[in-house]
Amino acid sequence: MSDQAFQQVQNGSIVTPAGFQAAGLHCGLKKTERNDLGVIVCDVPAASAAVYTTNLFQAAPLQVTRESLNNGTLRAVVVNSGNANACTGQQGEQDAYTMRARTAQQFHLHEDDVAVASTGVIGELLKMDRLTSGIDNLAAATGNTAEHAEAFCQSILTTDLVKKEICVAVKVDGVTVHIAGAAKGSGMIHPNMATMLAFMTTDAKISSAHLHQLLRDTTDRTFNMITVDGDTSTNDMLVSMASGLAEHEELTPAHADWEAYAAGFCHVCEHLAQAIARDGEGATKLVEVVVNGAISDLSARAIAKTVIGSSLVKSAMFGADANWGRVIAAVGRAGEPVNVNTVDIRLGDIVVLTGSRPVPFDEDAALEYLKGDTVQIVVDLHYGEGSALAWGCDLTYDYVRINAAYRT
Amino acid sequence: MSDQAFQQVQNGSIVTPAGFQAAGLHCGLKKTERNDLGVIVCDVPAASAAVYTTNLFQAAPLQVTRESLNNGTLRAVVVNSGNANACTGQQGEQDAYTMRARTAQQFHLHEDDVAVASTGVIGELLKMDRLTSGIDNLAAATGNTAEHAEAFCQSILTTDLVKKEICVAVKVDGVTVHIAGAAKGSGMIHPNMATMLAFMTTDAKISSAHLHQLLRDTTDRTFNMITVDGDTSTNDMLVSMASGLAEHEELTPAHADWEAYAAGFCHVCEHLAQAIARDGEGATKLVEVVVNGAISDLSARAIAKTVIGSSLVKSAMFGADANWGRVIAAVGRAGEPVNVNTVDIRLGDIVVLTGSRPVPFDEDAALEYLKGDTVQIVVDLHYGEGSALAWGCDLTYDYVRINAAYRT
Repeated sequence: MSDQAFQQVQNGSIVTPAGFQAAGLHCGLKKTERNDLGVIVCDVPAASAAVYTTNLFQAAPLQVTRESLNNGTLRAVVVNSGNANACTGQQGEQDAYTMRARTAQQFHLHEDDVAVASTGVIGELLKMDRLTSGIDNLAAATGNTAEHAEAFCQSILTTDLVKKEICVAVKVDGVTVHIAGAAKGSGMIHPNMATMLAFMTTDAKISSAHLHQLLRDTTDRTFNMITVDGDTSTNDMLVSMASGLAEHEELTPAHADWEAYAAGFCHVCEHLAQAIARDGEGATKLVEVVVNGAISDLSARAIAKTVIGSSLVKSAMFGADANWGRVIAAVGRAGEPVNVNTVDIRLGDIVVLTGSRPVPFDEDAALEYLKGDTVQIVVDLHYGEGSALAWGCDLTYDYVRINAAYRT
Repeated sequence: MSDQAFQQVQNGSIVTPAGFQAAGLHCGLKKTERNDLGVIVCDVPAASAAVYTTNLFQAAPLQVTRESLNNGTLRAVVVNSGNANACTGQQGEQDAYTMRARTAQQFHLHEDDVAVASTGVIGELLKMDRLTSGIDNLAAATGNTAEHAEAFCQSILTTDLVKKEICVAVKVDGVTVHIAGAAKGSGMIHPNMATMLAFMTTDAKISSAHLHQLLRDTTDRTFNMITVDGDTSTNDMLVSMASGLAEHEELTPAHADWEAYAAGFCHVCEHLAQAIARDGEGATKLVEVVVNGAISDLSARAIAKTVIGSSLVKSAMFGADANWGRVIAAVGRAGEPVNVNTVDIRLGDIVVLTGSRPVPFDEDAALEYLKGDTVQIVVDLHYGEGSALAWGCDLTYDYVRINAAYRT
């Protein structure tokens, strides 16, 4: 992707694209005083698209959002944290519909203008009295300043330590178009098809169908290439809304600026995906795995995800241990074709394996490198032309601490 | 499997089956004074069979053992711990051949009578001076007492905390036949096809081909159903040797006592597999996952392995947290067909989910149960007749501690 195609917008947020407002507040679903209810609203019907988890046990909000997206437009997406509303049966479905209806009512919208998302504990019913009171306060809290965006970003977090948000600008027909995104991640992160909760806004003029196509293509190379713990959530959802308020010719793959727009779109997704990986539960660093020379891109992705998902590799990264044996063992069990005699492995710039044979390296330099907050593992298979990038994090004491006592 | 078919032999060991001797000693491959070199020797040519890791990067000893097993018989298997002799190139292959030749010489055997196994760090060359000196001392250390077996069992351990050994007796034609096994496990445990290092001895009269068939069938239901961390080693190997010294008609599937023998054989494998899971790196408890009502046994196995391999489920078990949401999320991402409305989940006898809906349960009783040293998670899909058992352990601070600093 070309860095020239887009520019990052300093202090840009989810409400930077024209037509969008946001809000976030605390309604009492989380035990602490942190925000747990948020909304993104568009002034006009926004061409919208979404991708969802492949987990068979999909939470109630996903079903409701699918329904709302049938006509390809949305005006708002309402989201709560602290409770996933998953495995909650008919009552859970009813609650998700109530959440949608109440939001539509407060913002004077049709019900099918509203998407619904939830994240948090599985299997507990939503405290609907708190939630509906919260929704009743949302409209008054909504606006298009950085503070409003910040309140929204905070409202979607669970065990996340930092908010994840980005905005880029792209020129389309000489007009500045914005693409922004916000996400939450942290645990149960091993997206397949979609990711944790992520929301994208853009003022580009683009159809729902083309937005959906762009979303799917980009997701495969970004959100679907991260893993924190190999677990795929029941609630993963990525919703993208386009207000169409930027004054340019409609974006289609035939448009001269399509590639530039797609590059900016991809950058937003990649940034959020990396931010989710870096802020994985208990993580002290971002780990990036690069696989080159695989028989195909698909094969490279499978290998990269196996390496980034290995508990032993992740533990070694936590310990800043240049234990490349675990990397090659992961490559060998990925179920993909490799030549067992031609594998090179680098840790950053430090070559540790050439032609599948150990290379003497400076252990002190490796230790120093692996202690950094971003670590790259590069595997070159010399077998084909396929390549892939995957992102994850280290496995730490804190991951265990957080997850040994999440529900209780 | 019938409990009546076999009896466990108190104080039985790897040398209880007639014709077997063993030894173990410290030759200097491990930094501490623990045993790191062992041998099992048979007084007569033993019909033998083995299964191996499916990891593409197979360690040098596996190649050598395959060669020795070409004719279906072995007289000895020599094993070192502290160094896996994996990813060590031509020198590593040469070292594995030297290890075999030196052992053959010391025990006055043909080279192809000897199998070779290694476990430990990947990518470092064996200290051959220490190893060959050790081998030269092995013959004098060999015998058929419990102490000799103990020395062998200790010699194969790495990060294991306890030895794993069992012996059962079965009647074949009214004659007592013994089946014994010893194994090492602990880390990089996610066998597929074979397991970590495991060795079985028996005095039964059985051909190499039938032993191999039995070994493959049994491995699929035992060693291949355990996971500690999802990583499949480069060195997994299970070698089984039958001295044939018990005086009965040769065992074939047509023999009246075949099922009894197979049951005893399976019990030995299951015992060792469970022992490996229970002694997983950092583990505080054995976790058993039972899946019933799947569309097939194969499907049940895939689901059981997904649940037992989930870092979130494993962390919850460490925290004694009855977080069944993570169990159902794992079921839903296993890639197997389920009816999302008919899933029951029990923790031991405590029902937490019926028809995919939460059931109120006694949290104190669940906490008490999950604090135990053996925990059972039972998933009933009500979808078909397939069932499976899988074993694993909890994910703990100690797993991270051990693996953040294994190599260094």
